[in-house]
Amino acid sequence: MSDEFSRIERYFAPLAGVEGLGLKDDAAVLQPPPGREIVLTVDQMIEDVHFLAHDAPDFIARKLLRRNLSDLAAMGAQPLGYLLTTALPQSVSDEWLRLFAKGLQADQQEFGCKLFGGDSSSSRNAISLTATFIGHVAPGTALRRDGARPGDEIWVTGTIGDAALGLRARRGLLQDVSQFLTLRSLLPTPRLGLPLANIANAAIDISDGLLQDLGHICRASGVDAMISSQLVPVSKQVAIFGDTMLQARLTEGDDYELLLAVPPEKADALIAACAKLQITKIGAFKSGTGQVEVQDAAGKILQFSKPGWTHF
Amino acid sequence: MSDEFSRIERYFAPLAGVEGLGLKDDAAVLQPPPGREIVLTVDQMIEDVHFLAHDAPDFIARKLLRRNLSDLAAMGAQPLGYLLTTALPQSVSDEWLRLFAKGLQADQQEFGCKLFGGDSSSSRNAISLTATFIGHVAPGTALRRDGARPGDEIWVTGTIGDAALGLRARRGLLQDVSQFLTLRSLLPTPRLGLPLANIANAAIDISDGLLQDLGHICRASGVDAMISSQLVPVSKQVAIFGDTMLQARLTEGDDYELLLAVPPEKADALIAACAKLQITKIGAFKSGTGQVEVQDAAGKILQFSKPGWTHF
Repeated sequence: MSDEFSRIERYFAPLAGVEGLGLKDDAAVLQPPPGREIVLTVDQMIEDVHFLAHDAPDFIARKLLRRNLSDLAAMGAQPLGYLLTTALPQSVSDEWLRLFAKGLQADQQEFGCKLFGGDSSSSRNAISLTATFIGHVAPGTALRRDGARPGDEIWVTGTIGDAALGLRARRGLLQDVSQFLTLRSLLPTPRLGLPLANIANAAIDISDGLLQDLGHICRASGVDAMISSQLVPVSKQVAIFGDTMLQARLTEGDDYELLLAVPPEKADALIAACAKLQITKIGAFKSGTGQVEVQDAAGKILQFSKPGWTHF
Repeated sequence: MSDEFSRIERYFAPLAGVEGLGLKDDAAVLQPPPGREIVLTVDQMIEDVHFLAHDAPDFIARKLLRRNLSDLAAMGAQPLGYLLTTALPQSVSDEWLRLFAKGLQADQQEFGCKLFGGDSSSSRNAISLTATFIGHVAPGTALRRDGARPGDEIWVTGTIGDAALGLRARRGLLQDVSQFLTLRSLLPTPRLGLPLANIANAAIDISDGLLQDLGHICRASGVDAMISSQLVPVSKQVAIFGDTMLQARLTEGDDYELLLAVPPEKADALIAACAKLQITKIGAFKSGTGQVEVQDAAGKILQFSKPGWTHF
């Protein structure tokens, strides 16, 4: 691999916005958009934890950006740009880096953001990547996890469980002829740009698992949630597996769909705001202490061994 | 080790500013200080690259913050707060985390900043830590690397080479009875708060090595630099070793002192601005193409095998 400074110049400097000062400085400098609040989020991807060494570098890059963009979407924020850190073992080739940078470039264009700066380091073993995103939002309108109220309905965008099954397909555990599930796992779509500020009382993106992320809203808001397993929307590729994959799709996450708390009188406004997107009511919040209940079609409460992904 | 969410609640939530929303959300939200530009910087510390597994966790935490704070200092910026990512192997104990958080707390207090958010992950092997700092600066006054002009003098704060020898002391390769060198290596002092905006034309902090960091200014500014090895200020603990350690102190970095380009007519203002700090003129910039020359006391040009630290 070429040395640190040539790598920055060759692969990363072309991705930089003016705020990045050509990636020649210690930091980025930016004028905050007038009258807006700044939103900051950070996510990392570690080899053998979040991706596999043989995954395509451009897909790794794009998922790193999209995981962060999804966090901005969950706050109702728009992206400005990002800082990137890489810690790479010496075995990583220049070709890997070229493809990685190509992936960054593709998603910078798709989502309208630039590279503002970063840090590069060597690593003894695993590839370790971190992106810090800077976004902005109208003052006081950031969506939070703690705003759900008893009586609010629970809505989700898109379909749930595609990524859980896509991961199995990538591991050769199930067939995915159309590659739909595989792509949903490799290249999730952050639900940016939905005008949810005066509609949703709370929001989160589904990264850890539907039940766990719903639990985060419940605990932050001090309410309980009741959802119906039969209402959780699935793609036709997931529907084939029926209830055999119910636990996987409710607990494994990685879908990066939005989970929203919406007062019943705002339901029509929600549907209008998500005009181009599937949006489905799956249950409601009620008074409580942070619990999540799942009912099957017969109204029976289902139990799951764990609600979602946690690091240890 | 306890699970991810209890760790965040127990060790990190008490460190959070209001901007961090209790560390319960996907992102931090902050109102930029009115009329200021935002400065963003990120630095990582990887086990076996930037620190050793048996280093004290509170010192690892503090150095992580100080390396970033030094980047803000080099831009002339003041800190607001930071995002933290941790990737930890399962072998890391709760006691390690308690001490790590204690170190963060100590430096948050010392430097006036708060935790705004972050991300935690597991890791298969090494501990990997990243801090992204948010600072602010008066519009247009951020110090850059590209502003050095022929005729500017080259000044450095503090003393150079302490950290290089301190690292040897930590490895048992030299005696350090007073622990001065060891502490300079473990706990550098970011040179924040110096009013350099109308004094310095360019600035960088010495992290990679004096010669390499001076080279960064030269290449960014399109000038050459000439310094005298005998003028580079050393502590009495380093002076003992005389010129046997000259290469180490000029090329190993980790001192986090500031290296400044200052027009001669601003020298008095510089000395006044750095009233409480040692500040030393070590050379001057001249027309050129990005080269750095080092002269000894007799005016002979010295050659070094490499100018400083680079990852590969």
